[in-house]
Amino acid sequence: MEIGSASGDKAGVFTQGRRWLNALPVKFKDKVADTARNIKKVGQDDPRRVIHSLKVGLALALVSIFYYYQPLYSNFGVTAMWAIMTVVVVFEFSVGATLGKGLNRGMATLLASALGVGAHHLANLSGHVGEPILLGSLVFLQAAISTFLRFFPKIKARYDYGLLIFILTFSLISISGFRDDEILELAHKRVLTIFVGGCACVIISIVVFPVWAGEDLHNLIALNIEKLGNFLEAYSEKVTFTGFGDEYFKRTGDAESKDDKKYLEGYKSVLNSKTGEESLANFAAWEPGHGRFQFRHPWKQYLKVGTLARECAYRIEALNGYLNADIQASSEVRSRIQEACTNMSIESGKALKELSLTIKKMVQPSSADSHIENAKSAAKNLKSLLKSGLWEDTDLLKVIPGITVASILNEVVKCTENIAESVHELASKAQFKSVERTESPEKLHSGQPQNIKSAQMVNYSHVVVNVRESTMAASPSEISSAPKAIKHNMEV
Amino acid sequence: MEIGSASGDKAGVFTQGRRWLNALPVKFKDKVADTARNIKKVGQDDPRRVIHSLKVGLALALVSIFYYYQPLYSNFGVTAMWAIMTVVVVFEFSVGATLGKGLNRGMATLLASALGVGAHHLANLSGHVGEPILLGSLVFLQAAISTFLRFFPKIKARYDYGLLIFILTFSLISISGFRDDEILELAHKRVLTIFVGGCACVIISIVVFPVWAGEDLHNLIALNIEKLGNFLEAYSEKVTFTGFGDEYFKRTGDAESKDDKKYLEGYKSVLNSKTGEESLANFAAWEPGHGRFQFRHPWKQYLKVGTLARECAYRIEALNGYLNADIQASSEVRSRIQEACTNMSIESGKALKELSLTIKKMVQPSSADSHIENAKSAAKNLKSLLKSGLWEDTDLLKVIPGITVASILNEVVKCTENIAESVHELASKAQFKSVERTESPEKLHSGQPQNIKSAQMVNYSHVVVNVRESTMAASPSEISSAPKAIKHNMEV
Repeated sequence: MEIGSASGDKAGVFTQGRRWLNALPVKFKDKVADTARNIKKVGQDDPRRVIHSLKVGLALALVSIFYYYQPLYSNFGVTAMWAIMTVVVVFEFSVGATLGKGLNRGMATLLASALGVGAHHLANLSGHVGEPILLGSLVFLQAAISTFLRFFPKIKARYDYGLLIFILTFSLISISGFRDDEILELAHKRVLTIFVGGCACVIISIVVFPVWAGEDLHNLIALNIEKLGNFLEAYSEKVTFTGFGDEYFKRTGDAESKDDKKYLEGYKSVLNSKTGEESLANFAAWEPGHGRFQFRHPWKQYLKVGTLARECAYRIEALNGYLNADIQASSEVRSRIQEACTNMSIESGKALKELSLTIKKMVQPSSADSHIENAKSAAKNLKSLLKSGLWEDTDLLKVIPGITVASILNEVVKCTENIAESVHELASKAQFKSVERTESPEKLHSGQPQNIKSAQMVNYSHVVVNVRESTMAASPSEISSAPKAIKHNMEV
Repeated sequence: MEIGSASGDKAGVFTQGRRWLNALPVKFKDKVADTARNIKKVGQDDPRRVIHSLKVGLALALVSIFYYYQPLYSNFGVTAMWAIMTVVVVFEFSVGATLGKGLNRGMATLLASALGVGAHHLANLSGHVGEPILLGSLVFLQAAISTFLRFFPKIKARYDYGLLIFILTFSLISISGFRDDEILELAHKRVLTIFVGGCACVIISIVVFPVWAGEDLHNLIALNIEKLGNFLEAYSEKVTFTGFGDEYFKRTGDAESKDDKKYLEGYKSVLNSKTGEESLANFAAWEPGHGRFQFRHPWKQYLKVGTLARECAYRIEALNGYLNADIQASSEVRSRIQEACTNMSIESGKALKELSLTIKKMVQPSSADSHIENAKSAAKNLKSLLKSGLWEDTDLLKVIPGITVASILNEVVKCTENIAESVHELASKAQFKSVERTESPEKLHSGQPQNIKSAQMVNYSHVVVNVRESTMAASPSEISSAPKAIKHNMEV
């Protein structure tokens, strides 16, 4: 029996093994297909990524071939590598990041080379015993001080890389002086090769399909405000058609509801947008004027608008919690406050979309204010409705969810007002154009209302295209999916 | 008259100039004092920063002096710089980040060196015309592909630096092959010097006052949950003593109120903690077992807990909005729902603090559940209170703020429950010790309740110390202000 079962086991293992082997090609095929889909997705999410990769390859190949064909540089020898190194390390996704890193690297190398030569000279004077001690302590001191400086938030934001390169170059120059007495030449070569590499990066980054961090920040802020507006408009629809939430998801089919939910929850990305916005603003500060943006464009004001948008998103997150809450308002209550709530939601949603649009087009916000006034008067209506004695016969427990939603909506209206104020400030600081009164509302909306929903439901990058189609011509780089681009910039 | 006024102007300018000159030393002194204060603050916020700076200096000085005294390395020549370069670039604040960068650099150099030598050999075979074309296209291809790979989120999180070094080394080896036929030796030297530099970093980083990213993540999550608990307990106090907010800030003096507000708003840092938590978890994955943490500690579960804590923080942000809202509940309403609200707030606050404490001490959460049960029953009480017909004679408008707060508190209780669940999961995954029943509640709290408020009000790093004092002995590195440390790790 034992032998039988063992052979049975063996046969089982064998069959399993064969099955596994048979399945292997299928699994492999699945894996490959999966990877291919993944690659396609990363490329499609932001086509600028593909272009950026090609740009890096181009810059590197150019610098390499340049060295190959220029006998002029034969005297650089190994130091020629520094040009290649510079290209690899400095070339970043956006122009601002590349420029920032390049300038940091250049300035730090220049300064550290000078100080390194000085340190070397000083050490030479102090004799054979003192030399290593002096050099060692100088290296220790400058490394410790520079590293500590990197902890200061303001320095970190703009000069972090420069300090790193300062430590590096100072150590290299002062130490390598021991092996090579031509220390001035070393310093000279290092500065020159880094200059060549840095220039290659900056030129290619600006000339070939440039990616501007400032433009990304601009689009991101506009997009974030639009997402908040989308939620509120969609939310108001729910309020109108079905009362607060609950039944909605039962009414529509699963697939539709999922798509819709995804659209509705677009605002979620706004909640965690702080780091991305800050690093974009830091990069943008390095950029020269480009397209519609001048050199000293008020990038910091964008951060203020972004902060207020985030505060609004927190309120919306609370509101969203009530879409699926287990206690729902009774239909009687709903029908009474429905109109006012719908108006508050829809009007602040419209105001936000309007603000987003004026940022995108860089025109003075005008019609947003009237929407905010409407939202505020709807809030007042609601208040007087609640004051009226119509409520005495209703069960308070059934009123609560409706009232909570109304109360949070009231907060949202306030947030919208704050956002509008800071966008006004932005418009005056950045000298947005004022729209002629006759054409403003129509032109701003042309081509938008009828198809905005379907376009936005699929992908927000389509939204940007969609909005652009309406009136203004824009550069190809505007067809952007900014938040994904940031992911890259942020962590480098 | 004109002349007179002109000379008067001149005199004015002169006086102004003198005044400005006189003020200069004072201004300079102020500036220096300001900078000194700033330096002190950065150091005091996290003393580990000073230690880290000294460590970097030490590592660099050691490697430099090592090269100076070892005639063995004289044959390395300029390539000896790579060891210094490696130290500067690889040495990071936490052990995990240093190990991750070091391993990335080492592996990428090894792989790219091998491929670079291969590419060089291949190019050699293809004749004088084909050689530069082949090398150029190889450099272009690998740079483009590697750069594109860096856009994949998963690859970016762990192997970003490795890909950078891969591009660098491959280009260096294959191109420098033109100038130097001893290409194998070059590759060999590069791998060896980088190995020496990397080892110096890793050893000093682990041996001298190590900063563990895992421990920082652990403390950060516990601290964040504690901050939420602090808000809720402080909030419940406000509810008890003064009703919802309004009068509170009038009652207390300005200075006191500011301090208190700062304490109350500690939760705000939780709102934006996502990026920091994620990078800490990435670093922690590189770290070997240390202290109370084993090699494969479930760091990802911390991220789940962190996400739920953030969701709770969004609700608290909404709640905080009602502390200063312009419509306040009438005192009549307040007094009716006060008890239930206070209980909900205080019990969920206690539960959160309990959970934070169990994470800190790595014991199974036990008493938190009873607090959650209490909070839930308080919520039920509130519900039945609202159901009762006591409300028919009240003005609905006056009820709204109180009811909204109660409703959001209800959401907070739900969030607390979710957090508790995920902490339970963490406790089982990470095999937290179970506390003996007889000593648990007393021991957990010993030394805490009586002075926790004053300590926490000043600075949260004091809290960590405070908690540690109670029962468990802990390593000095635990005295941490984790969130500030992250700022550093995150962006490098």
